[in-house]
Amino acid sequence: MNFGSDNTSGVHPKIMDALVGANTGFATSYGDDLIMDRVRQQIRDLFEAPTAAVYLVTTGSAANSLALATYVDAWDVIYCHQASHISNDECGAPEFYSGGARLMALEGENGKLLPETLRAAVQSTPVGDVHTYQRGALSVTNTSEMGTVYTCEEIAALSSVAKEFDLPFHMDGARFANALAKIGCNPAEMTWKSGVDVLSFGGTKNGLMGVEAVIMFDPDKSWEFELRRKRGGHLLSKHRYLSVQMQAYLTNDHWLDTARMANDRAARLAQGLGKIDGVNIACPTDANMLFISATRAKHRAAMAAGAVYSLAPFGTSLEGDDDEMLNARMVCSWSTTDVEIDQLLAVLST
Amino acid sequence: MNFGSDNTSGVHPKIMDALVGANTGFATSYGDDLIMDRVRQQIRDLFEAPTAAVYLVTTGSAANSLALATYVDAWDVIYCHQASHISNDECGAPEFYSGGARLMALEGENGKLLPETLRAAVQSTPVGDVHTYQRGALSVTNTSEMGTVYTCEEIAALSSVAKEFDLPFHMDGARFANALAKIGCNPAEMTWKSGVDVLSFGGTKNGLMGVEAVIMFDPDKSWEFELRRKRGGHLLSKHRYLSVQMQAYLTNDHWLDTARMANDRAARLAQGLGKIDGVNIACPTDANMLFISATRAKHRAAMAAGAVYSLAPFGTSLEGDDDEMLNARMVCSWSTTDVEIDQLLAVLST
Amino acid sequence: MNFGSDNTSGVHPKIMDALVGANTGFATSYGDDLIMDRVRQQIRDLFEAPTAAVYLVTTGSAANSLALATYVDAWDVIYCHQASHISNDECGAPEFYSGGARLMALEGENGKLLPETLRAAVQSTPVGDVHTYQRGALSVTNTSEMGTVYTCEEIAALSSVAKEFDLPFHMDGARFANALAKIGCNPAEMTWKSGVDVLSFGGTKNGLMGVEAVIMFDPDKSWEFELRRKRGGHLLSKHRYLSVQMQAYLTNDHWLDTARMANDRAARLAQGLGKIDGVNIACPTDANMLFISATRAKHRAAMAAGAVYSLAPFGTSLEGDDDEMLNARMVCSWSTTDVEIDQLLAVLST
Amino acid sequence: MNFGSDNTSGVHPKIMDALVGANTGFATSYGDDLIMDRVRQQIRDLFEAPTAAVYLVTTGSAANSLALATYVDAWDVIYCHQASHISNDECGAPEFYSGGARLMALEGENGKLLPETLRAAVQSTPVGDVHTYQRGALSVTNTSEMGTVYTCEEIAALSSVAKEFDLPFHMDGARFANALAKIGCNPAEMTWKSGVDVLSFGGTKNGLMGVEAVIMFDPDKSWEFELRRKRGGHLLSKHRYLSVQMQAYLTNDHWLDTARMANDRAARLAQGLGKIDGVNIACPTDANMLFISATRAKHRAAMAAGAVYSLAPFGTSLEGDDDEMLNARMVCSWSTTDVEIDQLLAVLST
Repeated sequence: MNFGSDNTSGVHPKIMDALVGANTGFATSYGDDLIMDRVRQQIRDLFEAPTAAVYLVTTGSAANSLALATYVDAWDVIYCHQASHISNDECGAPEFYSGGARLMALEGENGKLLPETLRAAVQSTPVGDVHTYQRGALSVTNTSEMGTVYTCEEIAALSSVAKEFDLPFHMDGARFANALAKIGCNPAEMTWKSGVDVLSFGGTKNGLMGVEAVIMFDPDKSWEFELRRKRGGHLLSKHRYLSVQMQAYLTNDHWLDTARMANDRAARLAQGLGKIDGVNIACPTDANMLFISATRAKHRAAMAAGAVYSLAPFGTSLEGDDDEMLNARMVCSWSTTDVEIDQLLAVLST
Repeated sequence: MNFGSDNTSGVHPKIMDALVGANTGFATSYGDDLIMDRVRQQIRDLFEAPTAAVYLVTTGSAANSLALATYVDAWDVIYCHQASHISNDECGAPEFYSGGARLMALEGENGKLLPETLRAAVQSTPVGDVHTYQRGALSVTNTSEMGTVYTCEEIAALSSVAKEFDLPFHMDGARFANALAKIGCNPAEMTWKSGVDVLSFGGTKNGLMGVEAVIMFDPDKSWEFELRRKRGGHLLSKHRYLSVQMQAYLTNDHWLDTARMANDRAARLAQGLGKIDGVNIACPTDANMLFISATRAKHRAAMAAGAVYSLAPFGTSLEGDDDEMLNARMVCSWSTTDVEIDQLLAVLST
Repeated sequence: MNFGSDNTSGVHPKIMDALVGANTGFATSYGDDLIMDRVRQQIRDLFEAPTAAVYLVTTGSAANSLALATYVDAWDVIYCHQASHISNDECGAPEFYSGGARLMALEGENGKLLPETLRAAVQSTPVGDVHTYQRGALSVTNTSEMGTVYTCEEIAALSSVAKEFDLPFHMDGARFANALAKIGCNPAEMTWKSGVDVLSFGGTKNGLMGVEAVIMFDPDKSWEFELRRKRGGHLLSKHRYLSVQMQAYLTNDHWLDTARMANDRAARLAQGLGKIDGVNIACPTDANMLFISATRAKHRAAMAAGAVYSLAPFGTSLEGDDDEMLNARMVCSWSTTDVEIDQLLAVLST
Repeated sequence: MNFGSDNTSGVHPKIMDALVGANTGFATSYGDDLIMDRVRQQIRDLFEAPTAAVYLVTTGSAANSLALATYVDAWDVIYCHQASHISNDECGAPEFYSGGARLMALEGENGKLLPETLRAAVQSTPVGDVHTYQRGALSVTNTSEMGTVYTCEEIAALSSVAKEFDLPFHMDGARFANALAKIGCNPAEMTWKSGVDVLSFGGTKNGLMGVEAVIMFDPDKSWEFELRRKRGGHLLSKHRYLSVQMQAYLTNDHWLDTARMANDRAARLAQGLGKIDGVNIACPTDANMLFISATRAKHRAAMAAGAVYSLAPFGTSLEGDDDEMLNARMVCSWSTTDVEIDQLLAVLST
């Protein structure tokens, strides 16, 4: 019963098979392996972006921070949601890589930014005033940190504001697959056709061992990105083992299959939880994450029975008033089973 | 015939087996996996350092830069050899992580620093002068970038100078296993017993997929290191896949076995090359790297026959005077075969 | 009728006389001038802090940023008010100098932080979570950016929270003199006796040409500060011209006299404005700054008559609806005259 | 007998008069004062550069570091002389401001770089290799740190190499006036007409209180420079006091007059020293600095008699063998008198 995160899951067997399969002979290191050439082509085809620059790194923090640092100056504002991972969960990696850019964390229901909120925030940043931070970039997470998903129209509406003020648009797609599985559009529509300039395209949370792609739809800054990646210590020598994971991930829509599995499990869990008295679902379950509240007694019972998931905020204790409602996050992955879901529902129902 | 680098090799089958073996069920992410607990103990036992702090990252640049940044201030000098990887091959990663520390690249025959060179360099850095860079740390690579190995006595002699001036001592051990296999001492003797404070303990070049450990013999700065690692984007979520590689690496002296294999191959290649007219060996072949010179004609023939290795400096062309002597680096790894060595010797002999 | 800022004023004649007086012969450069020895003693005596470290720089941004960078790590939160100069008006200088520390801008009426707000903010910053920013330092501005003044008791109450969480306490005292003139306590009471660890002690806004002192009540980090100052390009070679200004500033309570003059003028202006229909005073006028609102028509008339002051927010236009109430800031200095005040009151009254 | 540095001198009376003269009424702060408009025009006229961007700061370290940071990336090499101030005497300010650019300190007789040395250094920096530092900018000091002066032809020859490799060309002109006074060309010839892109135009060492101009002959990066200056805490609020110094400095060739005075004094001192047995002049005295060697006994006698100048290296002691030759630097300024020179010559002659 592990619903702690999609990164507590293992590596999908198909991916592990690919790793084993790539483990023969020698390969040029540092990203010049032949498999990477194929991955680059796969991604360009998939995103209908024949000149896109494509790079692989091992963590989402690296993908996001390197991407953002490439698009903003140290004195720029990065507009983002107040629940955003880049603002809350990376120990300041974007600030580190950018040399001190400022993340302006904006409000928005269910983890999603609204265009008017973005516009007001940008307008609150003066133009031509040397004393203040300057207008930098927009960063949006899809699937959002609250498990909700932006539609392509919503992305385009945000982009329209960003373009109005000449802001580059970064998408943190750690769970991009889950968002796409939900919406059903194609990758190009959710990204560059809706105005996204650079995408952190996640694999780790969806069955890879630790691979994220950075896709820059306009390759103008690709050399700068390469230097930043190396300087950050994020250029892997035995790069073929990243490449081959991404290759297998994209082959035969494997990535979408696993995302759909995770979404489906979450939907099933949400459906079950919705029927339990004393459990409230706090957010629409668009993808593979659930945000709920339940009594401390229920949480205590579930965890005593072996369930793993996060109470919020960090540090919330199981000790205390039985009836107090405590917030929790539950995450499903491709490896979540119906059995585990049934077990969790059972223990929370009692 | 791939002698390009030890990182063009694959993952050792035992390591790949371990990865496959670890791929079951869920595991706590971000370094809190149970395997890491065992790895920590293995390393503490191996190094006879029961309180050492141990962390895993995926690249040597990250290991070195995070380690150095933890031990120096932005206005400090890092004393190192002019052939050092940290100075030449990381696109400034140490400078990036430290906020601008200065690498003072010192001379030394065959890639090795001498104590008197270090002392003179430190003494040339004024004390108490606010206008200059300050005395920071010592960083030594063992196996050195020239393929030579420091003995424990040589390490201790350098350390003695470092201690005299209160400099923390970092060892870049990307090929630590090869050095140890050469010297035959135990890991503690080559490190903290000889005055090393922090070690980048390499695995990638010796059969891992991409795992380096940072070992801080005094754990005082461990929390700072953890924050720097996270902020640098180097804390892997599915960390168990790093842990399990390191676990297998250290089990039953596997790491020393593969290092010995690589060293032996290099010795055999050196022996063969030494007998070829028109090929000169430029440096003692202590470990798994050879530095030679040979005529352009020989290099051209070897590469035409499929040999892979690096000409130096970067950008040296195969076009030009046949008889000109060109420098080259050849690297053996655990996966280098006698067949390949024989082939290379054959083509260079003609 | 210049109420734009206290830094549009000139240099007080006594200070200019001191500069002229110091302009004889040679003096050791870079802060080792004899006058600085006397200044150090003056400040130690004034603040009853015999071991305090004292440094001079030319701007408040440098004083604040160097002080904060000395007390926080790059991954730390600096808790401050949302109106704070360090957050809004320094183009990210604190982030630049600290390597990316995060300013958490907190609410508080009339520019002042409340202890319970600080406590809640600190408690919202997890302890021991490597993924988030860490608890860093507290920075409070006295006189605040809204022209209000913290009492010593209020400072002590904030300090009590800071000490509870081991946060260093920085005070931005760009208008420290005005605060002290208002409260009437002694400098020690408003600073270290109330828990302040480091003070940016302003001179520029109170009649100096461009001199701010940084006073560290515990000198432990003084050498680090000196290195940061030099590295930031803020160690002046002809330092005696900073020293002599500070010396004259502190002699015979000159600094308090000029602050009192500025405060008195502001009080007189506030009193007059309070009687004018269509002018509202938005904030208590504790020191030398007034925050008011008035109709656009009144502002237009005043500015047409030559009045200089700032409309807020940046970019507010005089074009538009006559009756709309627009916010403004007016600042008095030692050089503001009764005549100018009467003129401004007259034009705003009509 | 103060020959310690040109920054131990005072402020020239004409400049002090200008400061006093500017001390009336109010002035717009932060560089928007009317005097700055005139200074900008003066500099554009003087340098025949009608669109040049012109900014004032208070230290040479700030001028150099802000200028360099505007023209290089964090992963770039700055090619400079091994005696250069930016490399040796700024505690890493260029590294701090640039985010870690690397200063490559090159050899060159008498403090001057030769074109072939520069070319070799640039060629040693690979192109297109992501693992290494990249080709960044050239920085040359004129008057050099050894007191020698580059001719316009020498500058142009260096620039020709820089242009060949697309390197921006920075000139550290802390003693630009002395260089120009020596050469007799016009400012445009020594700068942009010879290929210089950005000049740190010194005033402090030549009679100002603490003012250096940064002149960017192509204004394309002016806004970036303004943001960097503010973010570095180097935008002075009471900016008119910088402006008015620069205005007086440039009026009626005052700056060249004082530079000529300093050069003439140094020439006279050099002539006298050349006649003394046991004193050797180490470097041509092109401008206002002398580099000599003399016996320890002579230095001891001179300093006992009240002479002030620097022994080199930092920390050289007057205690020891009487006959040992010790290196020294002596600097003349506009305020050096014939009497002091005669006194110094007398005591060194005995």
